[in-house]
Amino acid sequence: MTISAEKVKELREKTGVGFMECKSALLESQGDLDLAVTILRKKGLSSLAKKSGRETKEGLIGSYVHNGKIGVMVEVNCESDFVARNADFQTLVHDIAMHIAASDPRFISKEDVTEDVLAQEREVYKAQARLTGKPENVLDKIVEGRMSKYYSEACLLEQPFVKDPNISVRELIAAYIQKIGENIQIRRFMRYKVGE
Amino acid sequence: MTISAEKVKELREKTGVGFMECKSALLESQGDLDLAVTILRKKGLSSLAKKSGRETKEGLIGSYVHNGKIGVMVEVNCESDFVARNADFQTLVHDIAMHIAASDPRFISKEDVTEDVLAQEREVYKAQARLTGKPENVLDKIVEGRMSKYYSEACLLEQPFVKDPNISVRELIAAYIQKIGENIQIRRFMRYKVGE
Repeated sequence: MTISAEKVKELREKTGVGFMECKSALLESQGDLDLAVTILRKKGLSSLAKKSGRETKEGLIGSYVHNGKIGVMVEVNCESDFVARNADFQTLVHDIAMHIAASDPRFISKEDVTEDVLAQEREVYKAQARLTGKPENVLDKIVEGRMSKYYSEACLLEQPFVKDPNISVRELIAAYIQKIGENIQIRRFMRYKVGE
Repeated sequence: MTISAEKVKELREKTGVGFMECKSALLESQGDLDLAVTILRKKGLSSLAKKSGRETKEGLIGSYVHNGKIGVMVEVNCESDFVARNADFQTLVHDIAMHIAASDPRFISKEDVTEDVLAQEREVYKAQARLTGKPENVLDKIVEGRMSKYYSEACLLEQPFVKDPNISVRELIAAYIQKIGENIQIRRFMRYKVGE
């Protein structure tokens, strides 16, 4: 049985566990994602899967102003004030604020993209794809591919992290959850540009 | 003829000119506000009255985070980037951000208070005033008095400036307009509190 890279990625995002462990868990579960999470948890590897359900009420407000002209404010939540005071967490909050200043996301996660925007993007991509003259069932695949590109441009969690474009912001946060041992969530952000 | 303190205050806010000059201009204009502005302008005193109509497209983004738990971001506009780089202007932007963190305004100016909120406040004050058993025409006066108190609590420009409660934020800005010689406007702000 072969496991798609996409599926391994999904499991990594869900658990924060490394590529090889995720792949082997998926092979063991025969591609069943929930079962793979359980397998990783049994091995004590996926603390993230448990943690991502936990309530986050503490945290920090971070801000970053670039040259007086672009400003960002972000609230990042964790579970305890103890962790909020932790230097690692403060670094994460600062890096996220700086990332937002540089990468200008419109939403936090895929789920936050509004129906209007989704419908509009799909329509544009479909119209563009039609110009290629390919059959309708292929068009849908093209559109889905373009949508996934849209998410990685518009959604903070899907964007490549500005200080290390090999990982997404979601993966950056997953790594901190593993390191710090508490659930971490970006609650809200705001980005101002002078005169916009 | 007597000139009410309220009227002098209104002219001061419109022009940024001192109390005595405003009062004498109002006496000369027999209480006509627009004419008083013209009188002050003829004397070269009210540069503010001219400046407040000028377009503001430049400016600065300021931010202030208190203890990691309360964060403010504000955009303050002026007319030129030259002024935006000026140390006085930067001080003003910083002071406004700090003021917002401390005083938690809901709106920038009276005009920004939504109809819903206005109607609701009026209703509450009217109900409270009725309990006093006073006649209806007196109630309206009480309600107006309470509304003016509401504005000074909820509107940034009407709030007493946190570093000098003898002046409002509007007066603070008027003083900077006089000093710097450009129109200045608070365009927008956002205040975050962890977990709220």
